[in-house]
This record gives sequence, C-alpha cells and structure tokens, in this order.
Amino acid sequence: MMHKIKLVATVSSDEELNLANKADVVEFRLDFGEINLKTDKEKILTIRRKADGGNYNGTEEERLDKILELSKNFEYVDLEFDCPDFIFEALSKRAKLIESYHNFKETPEYDFLEYLVENKRGDLFKIATMGRSYEDVKKIVKLLLEYEDLVAFLMGEKFSFTRILSAFLGSPFIYCYVGTPKAPGQVELNSTFEMLSRLGLR
Amino acid sequence: MMHKIKLVATVSSDEELNLANKADVVEFRLDFGEINLKTDKEKILTIRRKADGGNYNGTEEERLDKILELSKNFEYVDLEFDCPDFIFEALSKRAKLIESYHNFKETPEYDFLEYLVENKRGDLFKIATMGRSYEDVKKIVKLLLEYEDLVAFLMGEKFSFTRILSAFLGSPFIYCYVGTPKAPGQVELNSTFEMLSRLGLR
Repeated sequence: MMHKIKLVATVSSDEELNLANKADVVEFRLDFGEINLKTDKEKILTIRRKADGGNYNGTEEERLDKILELSKNFEYVDLEFDCPDFIFEALSKRAKLIESYHNFKETPEYDFLEYLVENKRGDLFKIATMGRSYEDVKKIVKLLLEYEDLVAFLMGEKFSFTRILSAFLGSPFIYCYVGTPKAPGQVELNSTFEMLSRLGLR
Repeated sequence: MMHKIKLVATVSSDEELNLANKADVVEFRLDFGEINLKTDKEKILTIRRKADGGNYNGTEEERLDKILELSKNFEYVDLEFDCPDFIFEALSKRAKLIESYHNFKETPEYDFLEYLVENKRGDLFKIATMGRSYEDVKKIVKLLLEYEDLVAFLMGEKFSFTRILSAFLGSPFIYCYVGTPKAPGQVELNSTFEMLSRLGLR
C-alpha cells in the first residue's frame, strides 16, 4: 500500500558515485565539477547556485545554458523555483522537472509554501528549508498530507528525522549523502537503506 | 527542541526484562504471568484482556481488582477506554494513567478517534489500531498534530513505520518488543534505539 520510496544519492565526484550502490536515483551535483555519468540508475541533473547552497560560479545565463545542454542525458532536472518560465518549457520535453525551493535561513509561513506548490511548473516540487521549531515540522507535515509529488523536509542537524518522516508521508524521494554530507542534517545512504529495510519499506 | 522520546520495552517474562537495557520505560504485561518487577526504569502495569489482544483469563472484576492492588508499584497504569469511571478515579491518585484503545480489525473514522481523545480520563491516551491504507496513516497523523500526550500508531507489518512516525510527531512513547513481538508490526528495542541515535534523537 505504501508508495515506493526512492533513495537518492547526492554525488559530487566519481568516488562518491562508486559509493551509491544502494541508491535508486543519483543526483549529479555538477556545480562541484565534472562527474562520470555512467550508471544504470536514474539520474538527476543539479547545478546549484552559491545562493542556494551550491558551488556554481558562472553567470545565471551560462548555468541555464549548461543545464539545457546536459539535460538530454538525465531522467530528471532540478530547477530552482525562481527560474524563468522559458527554461521550464524548454526542459519539460526532455526530462521530468524537480522544481526546488531552498531556504538556509528559515522555514517560511505555511501559506507561502502552499503558494509555491500550488503554482508549481515542475513534475515534482522540492522544499528544503532550515528548521527552527516544531511548528516548522507541522508546516511540512501539513503540506505532505495535502499534496502528492512533493519532497519536503527541514534542514538542520536536529531535523534529520524530517527526511525520513517525509518519506513516510508520501514524499517520493529521500535525498541521502554518500562520502560527505552536502547539506546540514542530511542522512547517509546505507544507514537510511537499512532503516527502511528494518521497517519493511525496502 | 524535540520532546524527549521514551522507548518502552514491552516484557512478558523475567528473561525479556533482562533484554530491556536500552529502554526508558518497561511495560510489564502481567497478563502473561508473574514477572520480577526489579528495575530502575519507569514501569507501566498492563493486564490485557483477550479481547484486546492480551492473555488475561479471569473475570473483568478480578482483573480490575488485580490492577488496583498492584498499581502502587508502578509509575503508569494502562487502562482500556471502556473501563468504568470509578477505576480511573481510584487509580488516578496512585499512578499516571494511560487510557488505551485497541482495535485489531480496523482503524475507525477520524471523528470517532477524536471523540475518544477529547473525552480521555487518563493522563495519556494510546491508540493502536489495525492499518489498512494510507488513509489510516493520515488519520493518525492528523490526531498527532492536534493533540499532545497521545500515543497513536497503526498495527500491521506494513505499518511498522507509523510507530516511528508517531514519535517524530510528538508521541511520548515508542512501544518496542524485546525477545518476541507482542503485537503485529512492533519494532525491536535495540534497532529502534539505533535508528533514533542515527537521527540525533538519542
């Protein structure tokens, strides 16, 4: 009865890709440099701006050009919510789009988050915001009860559990690290796999 | 910021008590026979009727008498929601009361569960119902968002995850087994401890 939870390994190097055996999907963080794309798993293309916690140095125009150019090799492309419509339109024929909202400072009000999801242009919406309180957990839970095709969790060491919680509530992906964490509070791939196995979810 | 999640080990023998080191609280299932009460952990007294998944054979009058008599040795007493007011009143001076509702067939409508919680006579309310669908998960989640001092999860192998989920949402206890499971889908104490540790919740 549970949906299939997919484990996503976020990788930023060839070495990390080699550690991603237990993943269903690999997110290639090409803002950290070139990575060999050879894998039999589904692939997400992500080139994250510095402002969103990434490592991309070029201009926004160059970034979007690079995403367009590389997208044909990927099943999914991650595009930030503030990207223009034309890029969503251009990419929508080539890959599934994960429209993402990151906030490293705080978790905005429920109404704002709901507005983002209601107006999504991607196939999936991903919300990753800094957690501060249990009220923030409630916002995420309410969203997950309301919407499908939504990945939503809180960043921060104390809120790691929301990455698991969100999968329990229908989120299609759990983003995990292999090697070193890429975001505060991220969970490790193999231990997450084991946790889900113990709960009969793998 | 998270509340303290207490791990409860449900034990039905002296041997099982010896396996409960990692627990914060021990639930003594005295419907399975005598157990040595010597422990430095908090203790729950439970004498469960057959109808509620337990093993108690005597009359209801004998059962309530036994609960009253033994209660002075316990921090918590589990009392089923259909027990009469007088026993709640008599016990309320001696121990914290966990008013419990079990349903091994199904999870009733949200409104019925809400009614139970709204009218609770115990300090805590515990809901354990058989899960059938994701709609049942949603009922439990809605209740947990709405009420404090509520333990609520779904029984059934496929719904083990709701025992962890409920703790993420403020449920004060996770009931675990040591030795052999006492209810369908129960989670094992040590692996649950490890899971919470990995998520920084222990």
